[in-house]
Amino acid sequence: MPTIRPDRLLADLRHLRSIGAQGAGVVRPAFSAKDMEARRWLADRFADAGLEASIDGVGNVLGRSRNPGRAILLGSHSDTQPTGGWLDGALGVIYALEVARALAEDGATADLPVDVVSFQDEESRFLGCLGSRSLVGALTPDLEQGAADKDGVPLADAIRQAGLAGVPRARLARERYAGFIEAHIEQGPTLEDTGRRIGVVTGIVGLRGIRFTFRGQQNHAGTTMMRTRRDAAAALYELAHRINTAFPEAAAERTVWTMGRVRVEPNATSIVPGYAELDLQFRDASEAPLDRFEAIVADIVADMNARGGVRIEAAAARAPVAPTTMDAGLRRHLEAAAEKHVPGQWMRLPSGAFHDAGIVSAALPAAMLFIPSIGGISHDFGEDSRDDDIVLGCRVLADAVAAAAREAH
Amino acid sequence: MPTIRPDRLLADLRHLRSIGAQGAGVVRPAFSAKDMEARRWLADRFADAGLEASIDGVGNVLGRSRNPGRAILLGSHSDTQPTGGWLDGALGVIYALEVARALAEDGATADLPVDVVSFQDEESRFLGCLGSRSLVGALTPDLEQGAADKDGVPLADAIRQAGLAGVPRARLARERYAGFIEAHIEQGPTLEDTGRRIGVVTGIVGLRGIRFTFRGQQNHAGTTMMRTRRDAAAALYELAHRINTAFPEAAAERTVWTMGRVRVEPNATSIVPGYAELDLQFRDASEAPLDRFEAIVADIVADMNARGGVRIEAAAARAPVAPTTMDAGLRRHLEAAAEKHVPGQWMRLPSGAFHDAGIVSAALPAAMLFIPSIGGISHDFGEDSRDDDIVLGCRVLADAVAAAAREAH
Repeated sequence: MPTIRPDRLLADLRHLRSIGAQGAGVVRPAFSAKDMEARRWLADRFADAGLEASIDGVGNVLGRSRNPGRAILLGSHSDTQPTGGWLDGALGVIYALEVARALAEDGATADLPVDVVSFQDEESRFLGCLGSRSLVGALTPDLEQGAADKDGVPLADAIRQAGLAGVPRARLARERYAGFIEAHIEQGPTLEDTGRRIGVVTGIVGLRGIRFTFRGQQNHAGTTMMRTRRDAAAALYELAHRINTAFPEAAAERTVWTMGRVRVEPNATSIVPGYAELDLQFRDASEAPLDRFEAIVADIVADMNARGGVRIEAAAARAPVAPTTMDAGLRRHLEAAAEKHVPGQWMRLPSGAFHDAGIVSAALPAAMLFIPSIGGISHDFGEDSRDDDIVLGCRVLADAVAAAAREAH
Repeated sequence: MPTIRPDRLLADLRHLRSIGAQGAGVVRPAFSAKDMEARRWLADRFADAGLEASIDGVGNVLGRSRNPGRAILLGSHSDTQPTGGWLDGALGVIYALEVARALAEDGATADLPVDVVSFQDEESRFLGCLGSRSLVGALTPDLEQGAADKDGVPLADAIRQAGLAGVPRARLARERYAGFIEAHIEQGPTLEDTGRRIGVVTGIVGLRGIRFTFRGQQNHAGTTMMRTRRDAAAALYELAHRINTAFPEAAAERTVWTMGRVRVEPNATSIVPGYAELDLQFRDASEAPLDRFEAIVADIVADMNARGGVRIEAAAARAPVAPTTMDAGLRRHLEAAAEKHVPGQWMRLPSGAFHDAGIVSAALPAAMLFIPSIGGISHDFGEDSRDDDIVLGCRVLADAVAAAAREAH
């Protein structure tokens, strides 16, 4: 079985962390200067590992094995949230690199084709899972044309500024691959709370998004009497609080919902706001609670619009993501490797976060492996995992990949 | 009696509008390049009118009469809201200039001392009524040190960048003045709704501000279960909606409250917010409803903090402003002039908006004159008044100032 090198693994993870580091966190949003610097560094590492390295027209970094035969695709993403942690995405990319190196260095596995990838913009600066969508052919012109960041910068401008205009975009050759495996930090507390060191993901929750717009009348906060106001922010507060009050009854055990993005215009203390926006996102492993939430939202919006005053519109903020199931064959390889390294200390669990594996699963058998997140904290500068968990996860992944690639070969 | 020149008045108002114009509105926040350009242009106009013109160390534009005797101070402010209207402040400044010119051009009034002023930052980019506070000696080092705009730019930096570091600050010589008169658009619908063309202000409402901060835990919107979340934005929505639900019972007829400024961190769709801010402002002509509001806020905050989770703090966002009464003697001059020009078509009314006159009234007898706002709209690009109302207001002001200055002389 292949032998990973813990020092090399941790050194590469820490080097990637240094690109865009801010305190303990990392600020490397998709297509930023730091993101592109990280991608060029990754391409060099992929080439050093003997892979054919390239950066495609949407920023995906690809490392293609020169070995013949059906391959396993490994990887994750290297872009981060606006104020992100150091392991989200980066872990799975450096694992992929280390596993490719370890397999190449072992005579028993050196013939196995393993490709590695770092996808672009998994974190939705412009369009969530942009890179994996592009690779599997799910990036429609419509989706792409409407994509812009929260400051209104269009995706096309960001691609041009990154020097990628006109660069070819890679498309997945499905017949080349036996499957895709993505390793990731859990980003939740379940492994830590239950004392497990490895998670084998059963499926990825579905996700829907609604953007509310509130159109009222901007006016002076001192002279406009309450009865004549059409205050867009007041309507936003009411809608948001009514959603938070009504959803618990309709939720399943692990259903989650978030209203994390607000915009109020002109956002000044002394002005009655004339316009506001609110994003609602909700997730569950099954469709039923998501359907119930949509019905509740429609009822509240209709009720508030019937009163007149502020006009509320609710529109799908993104293409809905259906719940997905991970491939049983690949899962068995992950489970066998986990049981070998930490018998009884691993578990099966769903992923509450969305991942590129959810996109790739439409084109290839896909699976995921989790390692514990300290305190369950993620999407935050405080995100971290223990070194021994990081090393263990890579060992489990290497064994599982070796077995899956041998089986496919 | 002095004769104002409508063409000159309207031409100067329109020239001032052109500095920072955006569509029908004006963007000329305090200390911006456009604001300083407008102030230099005003100083030139004051000098052309025969006044000793200067710009002081906080950006106040002053035009001092060379006539001996007790003077009347006239003026308002020329800075605007972030997306402001063209008459808010500007009207009172150009009225002051035109009245000074008209008095100087008439042999019967040419000896009367009338000073004019355009105050700085009435609109609270850094500190509401900065200029009038400075003039009357109410700008304390504490207030000044903490002043910063919503992007965190400190006031001292803005003063330096405007070239005003080290420039002397004017201080009001109280013994020089018999009083201060500020003309302004009403910024509300009362004059229009009642068919009146002039308003004589009885007093200015009191104003208090509270800034709420919400400290929770930033986390991943997919993996953090609802029961373990400490969502700063969810607490903000609840508090804001509970305030909007509870305040009506405690309000007087003309009490108003506004929550027009929100900040959510990191303000991303897929992240549970860990920090948020909300500004609450409330106004009334008497203290009692304001006291009741403060008690309600304290109860809701205590109730929510007792639940644990997000920690809410409520702090005074600004020095409270007590309700003020306008000077009876100056009001009588305004009322007499209004009755002469439009008999029966003027009214007395309180000002729901705060004004520099509220600050100056602590140092001098102060009064205000209103003209109608079309549709009551203000603090918005749509703010406007009819030309004949603009001209009428200036005629009424000129007569009142001539009478008041003669009486004081």
